[in-house]
Amino acid sequence: MEKLTKTLAQIQDVSFSLAETVQSRLDNLTKPQASLGRLEELAKQVVLITGNIFCCLEKKVIFTMAGDHGVCEEGVSLFPADVTPQMVYNFIRGRAGINVLANHVGARVIVVDMGVAIDLEPQQGLIIKKVGYGTKNISKGPAMSRNEAILCIERGIESFEQEFDANGVDICGCGDMGIGNTTPSSAIVAAITGAAVEDVTGRGTGIGDAAWLKKVAVIKKALAINQPDPTDGIDVLSKVGGFEIGGLCGIILASAANKKPVVIDGFISTAAALIAYLLKPAVIKYMIAGHTSVERGQQAALKMMGLSPILDLQMRLGEGTGAALAMGIVDAGVKILTQMATFAEAGVS
Amino acid sequence: MEKLTKTLAQIQDVSFSLAETVQSRLDNLTKPQASLGRLEELAKQVVLITGNIFCCLEKKVIFTMAGDHGVCEEGVSLFPADVTPQMVYNFIRGRAGINVLANHVGARVIVVDMGVAIDLEPQQGLIIKKVGYGTKNISKGPAMSRNEAILCIERGIESFEQEFDANGVDICGCGDMGIGNTTPSSAIVAAITGAAVEDVTGRGTGIGDAAWLKKVAVIKKALAINQPDPTDGIDVLSKVGGFEIGGLCGIILASAANKKPVVIDGFISTAAALIAYLLKPAVIKYMIAGHTSVERGQQAALKMMGLSPILDLQMRLGEGTGAALAMGIVDAGVKILTQMATFAEAGVS
Repeated sequence: MEKLTKTLAQIQDVSFSLAETVQSRLDNLTKPQASLGRLEELAKQVVLITGNIFCCLEKKVIFTMAGDHGVCEEGVSLFPADVTPQMVYNFIRGRAGINVLANHVGARVIVVDMGVAIDLEPQQGLIIKKVGYGTKNISKGPAMSRNEAILCIERGIESFEQEFDANGVDICGCGDMGIGNTTPSSAIVAAITGAAVEDVTGRGTGIGDAAWLKKVAVIKKALAINQPDPTDGIDVLSKVGGFEIGGLCGIILASAANKKPVVIDGFISTAAALIAYLLKPAVIKYMIAGHTSVERGQQAALKMMGLSPILDLQMRLGEGTGAALAMGIVDAGVKILTQMATFAEAGVS
Repeated sequence: MEKLTKTLAQIQDVSFSLAETVQSRLDNLTKPQASLGRLEELAKQVVLITGNIFCCLEKKVIFTMAGDHGVCEEGVSLFPADVTPQMVYNFIRGRAGINVLANHVGARVIVVDMGVAIDLEPQQGLIIKKVGYGTKNISKGPAMSRNEAILCIERGIESFEQEFDANGVDICGCGDMGIGNTTPSSAIVAAITGAAVEDVTGRGTGIGDAAWLKKVAVIKKALAINQPDPTDGIDVLSKVGGFEIGGLCGIILASAANKKPVVIDGFISTAAALIAYLLKPAVIKYMIAGHTSVERGQQAALKMMGLSPILDLQMRLGEGTGAALAMGIVDAGVKILTQMATFAEAGVS
């Protein structure tokens, strides 16, 4: 608990001391005022987060965290649970969606085993922070103990800190891999926002109508049996969460504690962000919502946090794919601020 | 007219012979089917356009075309007309918004003088295709003659062909620079779509309410005096268009004739696309709408062509800035298709 307490204490409100300076520079660049819309807002946010008017997002990192889910035995996913470790190996070999898109925007991918159900072979590019061999079935009881919930957040914080110390991080993104993990994510969002389960439950890997009805029933049962406390992020995580979701919550908190912007991916990452927000509301100013997921449950979580995603490309893959593409747009915004000429520099009247 | 006729004849419907092959590969990549949404659709479109399943968008080009507008004397813009040549010099020095964003996505910028009101100093990086020294005031008569309209489309085609022959083009984007050019663009869109002038007229560089009312009145007058034929793209261009708008129409046609995807930027480029569409409806399959502009008139044009933009970042700068960012997303889609592992390759069940 010590690491978590310390990290939460480190997260301060962003500094507005540069707000006027950055706005003035943006307004004097060779373009009509505010004509680069969201790019300008993103640049401003990054300056307020980092406290640096000439910030540079060279060191980009996507943390893709993996975990398994006991609730899979209820048939909530189209894919079998052994796809989780297979996909982890695919990430390490560099041939998955997240590898292609991270590479496209110049980001490194850090793959973390937070709780895959089998032991993975230790190898280059894989960080083992395993808290357990998959969660327990949330429709029958809590996913994990309260201590395990704290531990997976802290191992997320550690993952960030180790990468930050070893190679530097200017901006990071969240990503997930875990067959079945839209089910705990829907449960988390329903628990915290109070939204109806039907309104925050999607098709995941692509289930049909009958399986969707089953999934809704499973989530309702999980909430009824576990009674998560909507004001206590750790309680929600332990009762209806997942190890990778806790890990991502840790990444988000650590990024904010270190004054670095963190790009939230899709539904699972947004559920993790919601837990981080409950633990420390000030974290919100460090978050950038990357993309609108096809998974409908994301909306209620974004609304509660007041976040509006950068992209809407009808994606629902996870892994950090939406965060990676959005990171490219954030980087573009920062380059506008730091590389464009002002009217005076360009001699434009 | 010969070059235009030849180019129009060269534009064929895209080939669907690879449609099944590309869909099958996308469905076998290590992800739930269709879970990368728009990226997969873009990859498919590029394959159908190029006829190459392992296409590569290495050679990216943004054509930024400049022209002046006689209608500026009516006070339709916040900026004086001499900003047009000043911004052209800014493009050439590489410090404008389009330079930063093109560089961000790995695209070259080709700056073309289609009709700036003064003679620009010939220099490296500037292509002179000048058709006239600014258009005439469209609220008093036609912007240019019918021959000039054909000529500016043909000089756009030439600009593409010269770049294509000299350095290669895998994908191109459209961009504009021309103080006052939202006024002719609104007139074009109103003329062709039949939309009310009020519904397709925006704030341009950022004019206030009184100037907006004036701008609407000027556009209505231009349409009443010139009576452009909504079924004849060249007539519309000559009566209420602009030299850079004709040039961009030429770029779009030439790109399609050479089986290369063309990314449409914001409002001015969309107006140019609408003229290209009137001249040859098959061109639509080669177009990719880059971004939703703040300029409301773009909507009616997109709707008529059935195009849905990739990005919505509340931008309204022009120059090709939205096209450049969107080109990065198209490239990402193609890389998904060509670089991701299939389930079989990755050994995922």
